[in-house]
Amino acid sequence: MANELVARSEEILAANADDLARARSGDLGGAMLERLSLNPARVEAMAGGIRAVAALPDPVGEMIEQWTRPNGIRIFKVRVPIGVIGIIYESRPNVTSDAAVLCIKTGNATLLRGGSEAIRSNLAITEALEAGARKAGLPNDSIQLVPRTEREGVRLMAEMDRFVDLIIPRGGKALIEAVVSAARMPVIKHADGICIVYVDKEADLDMAVNIVTNAKTQRPGVCNAIETVLVAHSVAPAFLRKLGARLAEKNVELRADDTAFAELSAQGYERLRHAADEDWSTEFLDLILALRVVDSVDDAIAHIERFGSHHSDCIVTRDEATAERFLHQVDSATVYWNASTRFTDGGEFGFGAEIGISTDKLHARGPMGLEELTTYKYIIRGDGQVRS
Amino acid sequence: MANELVARSEEILAANADDLARARSGDLGGAMLERLSLNPARVEAMAGGIRAVAALPDPVGEMIEQWTRPNGIRIFKVRVPIGVIGIIYESRPNVTSDAAVLCIKTGNATLLRGGSEAIRSNLAITEALEAGARKAGLPNDSIQLVPRTEREGVRLMAEMDRFVDLIIPRGGKALIEAVVSAARMPVIKHADGICIVYVDKEADLDMAVNIVTNAKTQRPGVCNAIETVLVAHSVAPAFLRKLGARLAEKNVELRADDTAFAELSAQGYERLRHAADEDWSTEFLDLILALRVVDSVDDAIAHIERFGSHHSDCIVTRDEATAERFLHQVDSATVYWNASTRFTDGGEFGFGAEIGISTDKLHARGPMGLEELTTYKYIIRGDGQVRS
Repeated sequence: MANELVARSEEILAANADDLARARSGDLGGAMLERLSLNPARVEAMAGGIRAVAALPDPVGEMIEQWTRPNGIRIFKVRVPIGVIGIIYESRPNVTSDAAVLCIKTGNATLLRGGSEAIRSNLAITEALEAGARKAGLPNDSIQLVPRTEREGVRLMAEMDRFVDLIIPRGGKALIEAVVSAARMPVIKHADGICIVYVDKEADLDMAVNIVTNAKTQRPGVCNAIETVLVAHSVAPAFLRKLGARLAEKNVELRADDTAFAELSAQGYERLRHAADEDWSTEFLDLILALRVVDSVDDAIAHIERFGSHHSDCIVTRDEATAERFLHQVDSATVYWNASTRFTDGGEFGFGAEIGISTDKLHARGPMGLEELTTYKYIIRGDGQVRS
Repeated sequence: MANELVARSEEILAANADDLARARSGDLGGAMLERLSLNPARVEAMAGGIRAVAALPDPVGEMIEQWTRPNGIRIFKVRVPIGVIGIIYESRPNVTSDAAVLCIKTGNATLLRGGSEAIRSNLAITEALEAGARKAGLPNDSIQLVPRTEREGVRLMAEMDRFVDLIIPRGGKALIEAVVSAARMPVIKHADGICIVYVDKEADLDMAVNIVTNAKTQRPGVCNAIETVLVAHSVAPAFLRKLGARLAEKNVELRADDTAFAELSAQGYERLRHAADEDWSTEFLDLILALRVVDSVDDAIAHIERFGSHHSDCIVTRDEATAERFLHQVDSATVYWNASTRFTDGGEFGFGAEIGISTDKLHARGPMGLEELTTYKYIIRGDGQVRS
């Protein structure tokens, strides 16, 4: 599959140029155009991604558990593929290759449904992947791209529980909502991240400033970047002085509650606004940060449970008891003590590969690697046992 | 909770008598009346079930995995409750108590929705459980029964993904279909079992007769009982002679394909009919068995994949290579070599307790015990790490 991608670079880049030309004549913004655009290095990177996944250990067939019952039957819990996995995504054509290879590696067939803006690129990439899979002796049709991109297709696919065992939607609210409301089969959402850092009264304030700055500014457009900082009342003035100095350098717009606003305004912080109600539940995906002063760790936990999206949340403190209270009370996929939320990532977890980050609770929560693309079955070996 | 159930036996039995009186004046059959009916021993059995679950180890907080990354962050994968679990079920009031205690044991709140025929019994049982939970210091409302039983309520509950994290429907096709088509949250179906035994040409025929007889007749009304036997052509005459003799004693009606029909008819088997097409995909839940002669293990596998429900399927053979082919090719929750399918059961697996048997592939497959009523989260402990 990697070889075929490289061998067909020219066709893929021509198809991509066609997509880009149409996108430029449409209303796609610069960031979207950048995400859509391929070049020889990006095609090479897709092929490199495939080779890296191919080199990982095969999770299928792993013996997860085994035991023998008093009647002598031996029970084996064995890792197996899920079946047919539907991936619904938007924009970036490299997802076509990444998602397909992860599904194939785990023994699944895959039905891909990308966005209309990338359809020519996706078709060319899928043709290359299919050709590679055929050459490797995989069944025909183990990788398929839905060749049409009408919205209606998402609903139709979501109703095909007879043929599709799992749908993974990756994209904006409208896409996720369309899938969730129509789907008859299991769905593992890759939805929004409203991630929050709480700076406790016992925090190392320099560490807190580092973590907040990293989690907000290192890559603001991703789901594990933070949108809100909560700070304990007693350390708010000192913390906001240090934070304001750092975030001003990075051109971050702050949307602060009244207490924080007064403090930052006194400092002369320039890009400053009063926080509106909707700011606490908005995924800015940009250099914008909401700020609120709270009375206690319990208030912080209550805020996170109410406004957060249960993705990745962090406490900065030196106090172990407070940290443990936070780690156990906050019901999020990943909860941090003194580290940046940006580590919620299959690569950073050491999974070797990642299909995405589940914002659902069942089957897979947080970063989804190869194991999360499998299920299990029970194999039972006996010598004639019957139930009495 | 167990103590309160016993203390309130009288109220529970009075409510149950009321349900039974209404059921008798309606159109409920004898089997349904039997399932609906409570007596002091059955209330005591429910309380015993609660005490047994209470004595099991607590799965919540279990450290599933932990590792340290090169940058020093320590990642802990910890078992946690799912949240709010909705259980939708029919008929037997003891499910109210069984399901509630399993959810509470695993730290979940539960929203129960039983059938209209048992509503007074269910309300009385739930009041007792709630009172017990309160006395044990559990939060108010950790156990709730939907007090109305209109069909519309199933759809409304299935749309409440803001409040309910998982729905487990246990019941007939219409109920499951209503949940699956409406649900916005994950669903783990407890649906039908079309379980199949394949008797290979290398089978020990006496063992095969024992297994088939047990799997069909020991308790025909449950999902892990078999509905179809496939037998290899070369051993069909000898096997059917032995099987016919045993099943005639048990009054089993056989629905046979032409080859098997000729053989059984020559033997003078009385309760014999020609199999109709729909017999291969019918869950009889009764002393009825479909019989088909096949050419090979591959034909058996193809039949199972086409007509079975991927619940529990079995091969009887002495040949290890054939057995392994079957065990790996049949994509069912539980696949057996030389043992009765009746072992697909939380108790028989040694799980200590069971909420039911999942016929879905994700999160939980096959018998669902306490672990399957939990999920996990990642707790990450660092000392100021940020992502570069």
